[in-house]
Amino acid sequence: MAPVRNARVVYKEVPKGFPIPGKTYDYDASQTIDLEKAPLNGGVLFKVLVVSVDPYMRRKMQEPGTDFYLGLYNVGEPLNGWAVSKVLRSENPAMKPGDIVYGLFPFQEYVISHPDPTMRVLENKEKLPLYKYVGICGMPGITAHHGWMEYAHPYLKKGDVVFVTAASGAVGSIIVQLAKAEGCKVIASAGSEEKVEFVRSLGADVVFNYKTVSTREVLKKEGPVNVYWDNVGGESLDAALEFAAQKAHFVICGMISSYNTEEPYNVKNLQQLVWREITFHGFLFLSLQEKYTEDFYKTFPPRVASGELKYKDDVVHGLENAGKALLDVLSGKNFGKCSVVVADE
Amino acid sequence: MAPVRNARVVYKEVPKGFPIPGKTYDYDASQTIDLEKAPLNGGVLFKVLVVSVDPYMRRKMQEPGTDFYLGLYNVGEPLNGWAVSKVLRSENPAMKPGDIVYGLFPFQEYVISHPDPTMRVLENKEKLPLYKYVGICGMPGITAHHGWMEYAHPYLKKGDVVFVTAASGAVGSIIVQLAKAEGCKVIASAGSEEKVEFVRSLGADVVFNYKTVSTREVLKKEGPVNVYWDNVGGESLDAALEFAAQKAHFVICGMISSYNTEEPYNVKNLQQLVWREITFHGFLFLSLQEKYTEDFYKTFPPRVASGELKYKDDVVHGLENAGKALLDVLSGKNFGKCSVVVADE
Repeated sequence: MAPVRNARVVYKEVPKGFPIPGKTYDYDASQTIDLEKAPLNGGVLFKVLVVSVDPYMRRKMQEPGTDFYLGLYNVGEPLNGWAVSKVLRSENPAMKPGDIVYGLFPFQEYVISHPDPTMRVLENKEKLPLYKYVGICGMPGITAHHGWMEYAHPYLKKGDVVFVTAASGAVGSIIVQLAKAEGCKVIASAGSEEKVEFVRSLGADVVFNYKTVSTREVLKKEGPVNVYWDNVGGESLDAALEFAAQKAHFVICGMISSYNTEEPYNVKNLQQLVWREITFHGFLFLSLQEKYTEDFYKTFPPRVASGELKYKDDVVHGLENAGKALLDVLSGKNFGKCSVVVADE
Repeated sequence: MAPVRNARVVYKEVPKGFPIPGKTYDYDASQTIDLEKAPLNGGVLFKVLVVSVDPYMRRKMQEPGTDFYLGLYNVGEPLNGWAVSKVLRSENPAMKPGDIVYGLFPFQEYVISHPDPTMRVLENKEKLPLYKYVGICGMPGITAHHGWMEYAHPYLKKGDVVFVTAASGAVGSIIVQLAKAEGCKVIASAGSEEKVEFVRSLGADVVFNYKTVSTREVLKKEGPVNVYWDNVGGESLDAALEFAAQKAHFVICGMISSYNTEEPYNVKNLQQLVWREITFHGFLFLSLQEKYTEDFYKTFPPRVASGELKYKDDVVHGLENAGKALLDVLSGKNFGKCSVVVADE
């Protein structure tokens, strides 16, 4: 068999502000691979099926030397991220041809590598579409599930108030449903009327468009807030501090409002940390994997398959569109969890 | 016996920025009290001996209606705060004449009130000067001890790095010594060369004057920081976020840099909460009283008496000087824990 195209999305330079597709990173279809003969050296040949574009990726685009425990992207190499791949050939007994694998992969059509601790062979008994495994059954779902179990669930009682930002998003929309399942009152914000409608359909009690309605006014009326699930930081965090309940818990899951700027919004109410005895739990799901992952894979796919957990997917087709998709996610233009289908099974 | 003067410090109006003695509050010597005949109605007549002036008092000077769980000062009534008083007469069996009592009292020479849960009859077996009981053996010592035990001690191992701001202050100077006693490397900042020398004498490993030396540069070289004890917020907090260790714990004890301004310093590195998995523990010692107070009174006075715990006191004489003393504390002008001796025993 002749070599085939092995396209990839190559990282080109450190962006200032938002990344620019074609400049910050670019689609490159110049390489090829011989799928039958390429040497594996004891590793595995993967065909990448779905890649996930997520806000944290912006953090990997920093000046070399910037400390980040997940590592930075290297200029000249492909971006990487959470993905679902299929094993085509394997010289490693842990994986066999046909296996569907979730893990960190380069943004590239075919990859030869060794199984690593981020990878997991998926069972998919429920026959969900594979893009679900980078969404509600992947990193965003894992983040919501693990963070909720560790930092929100232990501190809540029925009727407590939970405030969620980016509530139509990949993580936020799950939090809305987990909070409702615990009998909490859920206040949720999103960035368009369409998103607001969607979040309302998930069961949130109070939903508003933060672009047209004042977060402060909503929280003043509907608070105080016992648990704030923060995906955005900035002005929303400031309002949540102002209307926090005594001994509130803030789960700091993301701060997308400050990822693309050097002069972020000035959070003025930080002293409420003291007066209201607030705890901020900054977290990354990786540190909670051991404790919660088996429970996650046991419970989430069936809850998704049964329709108990709803989710909005934003499926983009073609690796060549991944760069623009990432920009849309960072700027809040897309709606739902964005995944890029690179190839069919 | 004829009535005697019963002077007080009366709260007059909500300040903008720093309080102004004579305008925000004022010394008023117009009232008198008959110490023998004033009716107690089942309560206690106290002679106030020492009052404490502390940064948190600024928080009680807000527009009426501002939510603060310790309550606000009321215009026309005296300020209040932590104090040591002597019982002159008592109709309550919990206290007898001659008892020395620590608790919340109005800034007033004589007070008739009922024993409340903030009050504690002091043993003072060590015969420490009574002003020690509003300092290292009072609220600041309690704050340091309780906060350290709950939020720092459990997360530290020998050799870990602890960063303390306002390290010559009422709470900070104790934290320096508690951290050294656990075998930590202590980085400490203070606001003058004299204060720096004092903190060095407490055993801190790296001490600097934050007004002349860049906190960022010091932490870059001496960090990363495992536990940050924050008394000030603002720029120091920002630098600590930038050079925090993974899974660092920040004990948010005070944010004096933002108490007297509506537009505080813009903390730009809050997103490190996520990337570094940092926990912020905002706290008030009152919530930890039940767990740690008996241990505190058992251990601290002897450690102070033996010289094991060192402390710098800034003793002001005369209730008429309390207002200026508070301003000096808020603006960082004073040096050491400020207490105001109102009367001798």
